[in-house]
Amino acid sequence: MRLALSLGARGQGRTWPNPAVGCVIVKGERVLGRGWTAPGGRPHAEPRALDQAGAGARGATAYVSLEPCAHHGQTPPCVEALISASVARVVVAMEDPDPRTRGQGVARLRDAGIAVTEGVLRDEAARAHSGFVSRITRGRPALTLKLAGSFDGRIATASGESRWITGDLARRAVHGMRARHDAVMVGAGTVRTDDPNLTVRGLGVAHQPVRVVISRRLDLPSDSVLAQNAHEVPLWLCHGEDAAGGVQAAWRDRGARLIPCATAPWGQLDLSDVMEALGREGLTRVFCEGGGALAASLLTADLVDDLVGFTAGIALGAEGQPAIGAMGVAALGEAPRFILRDTRAIGPDILHRWTRGPV
Amino acid sequence: MRLALSLGARGQGRTWPNPAVGCVIVKGERVLGRGWTAPGGRPHAEPRALDQAGAGARGATAYVSLEPCAHHGQTPPCVEALISASVARVVVAMEDPDPRTRGQGVARLRDAGIAVTEGVLRDEAARAHSGFVSRITRGRPALTLKLAGSFDGRIATASGESRWITGDLARRAVHGMRARHDAVMVGAGTVRTDDPNLTVRGLGVAHQPVRVVISRRLDLPSDSVLAQNAHEVPLWLCHGEDAAGGVQAAWRDRGARLIPCATAPWGQLDLSDVMEALGREGLTRVFCEGGGALAASLLTADLVDDLVGFTAGIALGAEGQPAIGAMGVAALGEAPRFILRDTRAIGPDILHRWTRGPV
Repeated sequence: MRLALSLGARGQGRTWPNPAVGCVIVKGERVLGRGWTAPGGRPHAEPRALDQAGAGARGATAYVSLEPCAHHGQTPPCVEALISASVARVVVAMEDPDPRTRGQGVARLRDAGIAVTEGVLRDEAARAHSGFVSRITRGRPALTLKLAGSFDGRIATASGESRWITGDLARRAVHGMRARHDAVMVGAGTVRTDDPNLTVRGLGVAHQPVRVVISRRLDLPSDSVLAQNAHEVPLWLCHGEDAAGGVQAAWRDRGARLIPCATAPWGQLDLSDVMEALGREGLTRVFCEGGGALAASLLTADLVDDLVGFTAGIALGAEGQPAIGAMGVAALGEAPRFILRDTRAIGPDILHRWTRGPV
Repeated sequence: MRLALSLGARGQGRTWPNPAVGCVIVKGERVLGRGWTAPGGRPHAEPRALDQAGAGARGATAYVSLEPCAHHGQTPPCVEALISASVARVVVAMEDPDPRTRGQGVARLRDAGIAVTEGVLRDEAARAHSGFVSRITRGRPALTLKLAGSFDGRIATASGESRWITGDLARRAVHGMRARHDAVMVGAGTVRTDDPNLTVRGLGVAHQPVRVVISRRLDLPSDSVLAQNAHEVPLWLCHGEDAAGGVQAAWRDRGARLIPCATAPWGQLDLSDVMEALGREGLTRVFCEGGGALAASLLTADLVDDLVGFTAGIALGAEGQPAIGAMGVAALGEAPRFILRDTRAIGPDILHRWTRGPV
């Protein structure tokens, strides 16, 4: 099952709105087939692994990181493929939360006389599929918030200098994280001050995640890098209904997709609505890279599932720009707390990862 | 030598102004004697280990974490003890920087026909003795700055609530760190807002480090915990020449030792002078616990040798009180950088340690 999970991880960031599943066909001590959800979401992992195994699949055991689908979509259901290949046993890490499959995949396998074991490495699978589960059960993608800053939580000097606080290895790790998410998201302020590209570079990855910018008024520089390559790499702009029509049209001409979102009573975009809109567009895993204001708003709205920190051994002092903007936290008990997952050195910096808890 | 270093560490925080040395007497595969510098700085490690070994020391090897002293102080020189015990060989981790011994300890051993090996685990020894070396070579103690805060570098909410951001284990580790330093230091603001005790508690440690408060005008609450127990636990107040005489007298009556320090042209106490004054008083290892203003001033003056961070998975937002106050950093290149030593989980929090570089 660990192999199935690790194969499934290869598809992360590229299978949305489908889950990134892994499948291994084993007979005795031999691995006969290995498959994972292909980019775009199909073919699924099971038929790919069964294809590899061929006739050898008869009587074999299939390990699948998510309950095999039972419904006819654009592909025939995977349970049929497993049944017609005459596998003897299927080991499933976790139930598919999709109501079209939930429990029915396993039931149909059992009806066909196949032994089924459920719940093997369930916690690991729940983490691997958290984005897919979040979209199905909460109607929005899972959200990772990444912040790279100084020892004292600053992401730039007072004058805005931020290149580079953390080292090469940390930045490389960020590109890897981008590649494993469906989309990279920033606030409008980051576009204005940093003019970022937000693409995955230097890893030999051809695939690019969607780039999402949150900007109520679409007051983004028309000469920004994002504006220049929006025809090549997807750029989605989440904006308020009050963004001027001419500005919307100009961004559409540049190649951006415009996603209108609700405005909250206090004037900012309603970030719950933004996340639901991104879920409707099919996104399952979103990687937010700031800035401080967007980070604070997402945390205040309790929309952050995972926190990733890169911390450098540099002190910038209180004039530096804060990694997280004003949150209006009146008492410690109100502040959002995260559970530590791990911490390690990454070049001259540290990487620390936290989670809000199970989805 | 690892055992000698680890024995030496037992004395840390209790041997100042002397170094915390460890010594092991070995013959064949048997450890015949183990010694470390006693609280108060004497007897030294070598005579204690030799006493244990007794007549067995003849022909044995002595491992010492610092070059044995060659001068007559309040105790006879350790080289004489080693020579009269007729050890065959002495392994020394590093040279004693004290001009009264430097190189002469080793030379006198060799003159007596004893084989000497130098530089075994020198880097580890340099770290262990960094406070002693700093006092001898720079005239001031080594300084560790500890900051415990939120994911975004805040040490309290806007209203000053800070109990507790980090967990029990982190606080316990802080008490352990206090015990291994000669003194615990804070700024006057911390005394006014937190009214701390700054003692070592909960570890079964009888010994208490000196408590140092930096306060130019001595405007500290007379009903503070520090004021109440200054007769029991040493309290040193570093103040400016302009602190009112009556206030000075009142603090002296409460049991504090007053240390006048120079004032810098910009009105604050000159922290280099403060650190030199503490060195003159004999301190070798000082553990500063903030607050933000003192931390910033120490960093700006490049007086911090080691940084220790405890980070909790909580987000407090930009209104929270910063771990490090204003530093006037205009460009990234000017900001002080530290080298990562290690990072690990400590209960629900992370501990990360950094060093400015070799002393």
